[in-house]
Amino acid sequence: MSRPEKLKVGIVGGTGYTGVELLRLLVNHPHVEVVAITSRSEDGVAVADMFPSLRGELDLRFSVPDVKVLGRCDVVFFATPHNVAMRMMPELLAENVRVVDLSADFRVRDAEVWSQWYNETHVCPELLAEAVYGLPEMNREAIRTARLVACAGCYPTAVQLGMLPLLEHGLVDDQSLIASCASGVSGGGKATKVPMLMAEASDNFKAYGASGHRHLPEIEQGLADMAGHAVQLTFVPHLVPMIRGINATLYSVLKSNAPSLAQLQTLFEQRYQDEPFVDVMPMGSHPETRFVKGTNHCRLALHQPQGRNTLVVLSVIDNLTKGASGQAIQNMNIMFDLPEAAGLNTIALLP
Amino acid sequence: MSRPEKLKVGIVGGTGYTGVELLRLLVNHPHVEVVAITSRSEDGVAVADMFPSLRGELDLRFSVPDVKVLGRCDVVFFATPHNVAMRMMPELLAENVRVVDLSADFRVRDAEVWSQWYNETHVCPELLAEAVYGLPEMNREAIRTARLVACAGCYPTAVQLGMLPLLEHGLVDDQSLIASCASGVSGGGKATKVPMLMAEASDNFKAYGASGHRHLPEIEQGLADMAGHAVQLTFVPHLVPMIRGINATLYSVLKSNAPSLAQLQTLFEQRYQDEPFVDVMPMGSHPETRFVKGTNHCRLALHQPQGRNTLVVLSVIDNLTKGASGQAIQNMNIMFDLPEAAGLNTIALLP
Amino acid sequence: MSRPEKLKVGIVGGTGYTGVELLRLLVNHPHVEVVAITSRSEDGVAVADMFPSLRGELDLRFSVPDVKVLGRCDVVFFATPHNVAMRMMPELLAENVRVVDLSADFRVRDAEVWSQWYNETHVCPELLAEAVYGLPEMNREAIRTARLVACAGCYPTAVQLGMLPLLEHGLVDDQSLIASCASGVSGGGKATKVPMLMAEASDNFKAYGASGHRHLPEIEQGLADMAGHAVQLTFVPHLVPMIRGINATLYSVLKSNAPSLAQLQTLFEQRYQDEPFVDVMPMGSHPETRFVKGTNHCRLALHQPQGRNTLVVLSVIDNLTKGASGQAIQNMNIMFDLPEAAGLNTIALLP
Amino acid sequence: MSRPEKLKVGIVGGTGYTGVELLRLLVNHPHVEVVAITSRSEDGVAVADMFPSLRGELDLRFSVPDVKVLGRCDVVFFATPHNVAMRMMPELLAENVRVVDLSADFRVRDAEVWSQWYNETHVCPELLAEAVYGLPEMNREAIRTARLVACAGCYPTAVQLGMLPLLEHGLVDDQSLIASCASGVSGGGKATKVPMLMAEASDNFKAYGASGHRHLPEIEQGLADMAGHAVQLTFVPHLVPMIRGINATLYSVLKSNAPSLAQLQTLFEQRYQDEPFVDVMPMGSHPETRFVKGTNHCRLALHQPQGRNTLVVLSVIDNLTKGASGQAIQNMNIMFDLPEAAGLNTIALLP
Repeated sequence: MSRPEKLKVGIVGGTGYTGVELLRLLVNHPHVEVVAITSRSEDGVAVADMFPSLRGELDLRFSVPDVKVLGRCDVVFFATPHNVAMRMMPELLAENVRVVDLSADFRVRDAEVWSQWYNETHVCPELLAEAVYGLPEMNREAIRTARLVACAGCYPTAVQLGMLPLLEHGLVDDQSLIASCASGVSGGGKATKVPMLMAEASDNFKAYGASGHRHLPEIEQGLADMAGHAVQLTFVPHLVPMIRGINATLYSVLKSNAPSLAQLQTLFEQRYQDEPFVDVMPMGSHPETRFVKGTNHCRLALHQPQGRNTLVVLSVIDNLTKGASGQAIQNMNIMFDLPEAAGLNTIALLP
Repeated sequence: MSRPEKLKVGIVGGTGYTGVELLRLLVNHPHVEVVAITSRSEDGVAVADMFPSLRGELDLRFSVPDVKVLGRCDVVFFATPHNVAMRMMPELLAENVRVVDLSADFRVRDAEVWSQWYNETHVCPELLAEAVYGLPEMNREAIRTARLVACAGCYPTAVQLGMLPLLEHGLVDDQSLIASCASGVSGGGKATKVPMLMAEASDNFKAYGASGHRHLPEIEQGLADMAGHAVQLTFVPHLVPMIRGINATLYSVLKSNAPSLAQLQTLFEQRYQDEPFVDVMPMGSHPETRFVKGTNHCRLALHQPQGRNTLVVLSVIDNLTKGASGQAIQNMNIMFDLPEAAGLNTIALLP
Repeated sequence: MSRPEKLKVGIVGGTGYTGVELLRLLVNHPHVEVVAITSRSEDGVAVADMFPSLRGELDLRFSVPDVKVLGRCDVVFFATPHNVAMRMMPELLAENVRVVDLSADFRVRDAEVWSQWYNETHVCPELLAEAVYGLPEMNREAIRTARLVACAGCYPTAVQLGMLPLLEHGLVDDQSLIASCASGVSGGGKATKVPMLMAEASDNFKAYGASGHRHLPEIEQGLADMAGHAVQLTFVPHLVPMIRGINATLYSVLKSNAPSLAQLQTLFEQRYQDEPFVDVMPMGSHPETRFVKGTNHCRLALHQPQGRNTLVVLSVIDNLTKGASGQAIQNMNIMFDLPEAAGLNTIALLP
Repeated sequence: MSRPEKLKVGIVGGTGYTGVELLRLLVNHPHVEVVAITSRSEDGVAVADMFPSLRGELDLRFSVPDVKVLGRCDVVFFATPHNVAMRMMPELLAENVRVVDLSADFRVRDAEVWSQWYNETHVCPELLAEAVYGLPEMNREAIRTARLVACAGCYPTAVQLGMLPLLEHGLVDDQSLIASCASGVSGGGKATKVPMLMAEASDNFKAYGASGHRHLPEIEQGLADMAGHAVQLTFVPHLVPMIRGINATLYSVLKSNAPSLAQLQTLFEQRYQDEPFVDVMPMGSHPETRFVKGTNHCRLALHQPQGRNTLVVLSVIDNLTKGASGQAIQNMNIMFDLPEAAGLNTIALLP
């Protein structure tokens, strides 16, 4: 029997953190081959020279992005800051390439709202309707056939997976939702800013963007899809002195007719029983970000403090894996009918 | 003119983190002299051998606690785990010593409630009524004349100072308060437990005690005092991979007739204008725990995300200073009519 | 064609850090099945309850060590503190099981020397001669047929791999070797000691064991094997506020007839060209511990500061992988004629 | 008796880490007043807006450097990168201001050597002879009357204090000295470079500059002054994932007629007995960087591993305090005949 051919993969913007995370996972993926990885500034540089963790694993050099080269790929990942993917997208799609965009360019369906939060005019709003929001637990079927998947963001993934069963069943007041979230510093990317220096960010904790953060419209859009109507969320992110990981502590007020905590636990377990990457931990558990470090899992736990009517859902992911590159590969696996967990079997380091 | 005599200070339980923090501050305090520091296990050991940071600063040895020796002090600090101070307290007070208890033994006025959360019967409930809750911003006058001050806890200090002006003026729904808090690992004390090992706690973030934490009754009691009636708080603590610091992110729903954010900002500034250790930062600020590391300050900031009706107050303290030993000294300064900031002029290290 | 049967693997002492690291790697190893993992204290507890990173990956419970059960394994790993393996070893070997001992019990061939450094009498000195020192780069052939492999320690692996080509060729003064090493905190194991608390070990750096450390005799024995005669090494370990990783900075004085730095670089590259886990980086490189985190690699680089006669070799490994559990699996692969890198293809997380 | 007037202090380059450290210490210094602090980029910005740790402590704004303004100061500190101070120095000295330069511009007496390591031509080599090297333990008398003090660097301070008694007495082979050093990330300053991002530098350890580091000529010059002739040092710095602190582990070969370890201990104790900031810890101690964090102390300890002829001296300082700003203030105190420890009485935070 002949061995099936490997998917040809291209990566645009491979020098950042989601880029190297894609590489880490794809290098051991049994069904793909990375054939191009672009960077304008690092053109010609061996990837393993920039990322010595890949020495001996990958014999590839960065190249300037070229639609012709990328056009020969089966799938292209955009691991770029926002405002890049949308500029290349129409041309690239015209080459019949399928795309997984890890950036924010196609996540918010309303071009107006997007422009407001990202301070840019959207250059191809006509593609927004076609783009499928890449959260498999919500949109698996649409992802299968999508040309363009807008991979869900990091905070949005942690928050949405924690609230999904509650909103689908209308069990909480969805006009007063609260997401108190915390991220490791890799969420800020590789851009060099003073607050991200180790001398500034370590041995410290702070809220940021408390008056309004770009992930809000994306999250509220997703939650509204689940609820069937608009919701209101207060979202406050915090910066944790760790490299990877997101924790979302989600507060919602149970409706008076809501089921018991034990029943909610069962509901969560049932909702996610066939999901390869969502783990509902036993009642009373406290998921830790290290339990998912470097893996594509989301781990959840439910609490009802003092048995009162405020429900607390704890949700952890790795911001670079389930919150970005791992999820992108999960989306790709679905799009190309590969085993959904292919290439995503890594286990978190403990300790 | 003769130099005023220094206060004689004793410390019970000096080997833990609040003990060494008391020493760090008292050694440079202009009006006190530490004359005794107790530890059963370290009897005879030089304090500076256990804490080399004090080499050359303090020539004192640990001794077994002895009411006679402590009875000759002007003031005794208890830097012990809960369930120790209450056992020595009656005897010690009989010696006419004034006491600042950093432990939880006398913070909750209701002995039943205390017993429920601490799994111990309170051995001197008759002193609970006399004990003054040591949060100077609430109780300064009562502290002046108190024999026994129950120094406010770390999370309780951060939460209460952030909510005080709101509750005093009845501006928010006090039945749905939320405190999403995070502490550095020194909050767990020096006890050796696996989760507090560096290999377990670093590069990680997690909630703990989400179904119920011992600080809840203390905080709700304080908030009720401010509001004039019982309140309901959902309190979820988290563990941050840093040594010191507490951040409280406080969510409350503004009443429909509540003033604007700018007016709330003014209200906070006015409430705290004479407080030496509470700093209301400019609107839009994000206080960081490192801004108060090693100092007795609480720094606050207000946000109203998306201009909706959920108010966010950010509050940071150092859990060992304003959250324990610094506040204990502030209480002592008040009790003995010393300048309130004496010995508390340290400035946070940056970076 | 029938699928080859999987090796049956047992682990003694599975609750510590080398135990969970073995599990992380073995769970994805294509040719083995873990059939028993022992712990006296955790008998009956599901492994995934203690290590949530393994939820969904491993359905096994800890059990009390039982020679009969272990005797049905093809290979047993000891992931115990020293002084445990030697007590079970004779009985276990009698069951025809092959053993990889990750502890120090069989690393030093001289029972007297061992006793001196470990403050214990060795209980089966007769096995010391049979035990093969498990550093594949030195002893691959002997490992193939060994019944008992004494897996090389963490510091010893980093130091020996860095010095091997120099000593084999007699290029440096081997009576004045210096190894200034640094380890992450997981090197201290999971035992709860105050200095390993995060509040003590983080944001800090210190030497320890500077007057003499247990790894010295093991290292000097290995270096002597390379040199063909006794050597003298000054070895000072340091504690780094990181979880995993060892860095060895090795200083040695080049003999007057030693080759140039470029020639030494070539010598290192040639010596290790067929080694799957030793990477000689380009001249002038600075290996970082994160480049090997969670992997079985050792990365090396050479420097000759100011062109003088002191050579500096930099050597990094992950203390739990190449320094313990990864190396143990590499040894097992060699012993059972499996591909040497089977199960060891993980790539370090960056960032 | 009239109170003596306070010294007027100016700071050039106040936005970096040594700048804010100067401010932290000077704000509580009883005999000085900071009257000017310059920054071209932050002209007009309140210092406390950039450094919230100073809120309420300092009412001063950054201003553009102006020799006239600075000329009215009694003393000016340069807290600038190298290549700045030397450009303003002649003009400033002409105003009869005394200067403490924290940068490297005047530390190396040989302009040729300086140029070689700093890739700049020295613009006022005529001042090099006049500049006094600001290591009080070596040069106290010359510092008293100096116009221009070139404050000793961070690594150089740790290394020189650890080797001083040995070289003064000619007890070790000074042609084969080794300094294996490690620094916290604040040593890299506030400049934004990828390797100093928290996502890159934390949970990691690495050597850097192993083939040659700028501090080498400064250290060798100082050691040569002690020895009375040229010495040879191999110096390898490492980066530690902590904010502050330097550890120097110093290896030297004792001469055959060298005294015993106990005698060396005594020698060190005697040499430093009158030094307010050098602490020789008991034999067998392991100084930790946290023991001196935020303080002006250097703590030392001696070891003689296995009783062989290699001596190990451990030396720790805070790179920003004794390694920069604290030492600068110590120098100032000496220059102006103030108590040498004035303003430098802070005690390290533990934990």
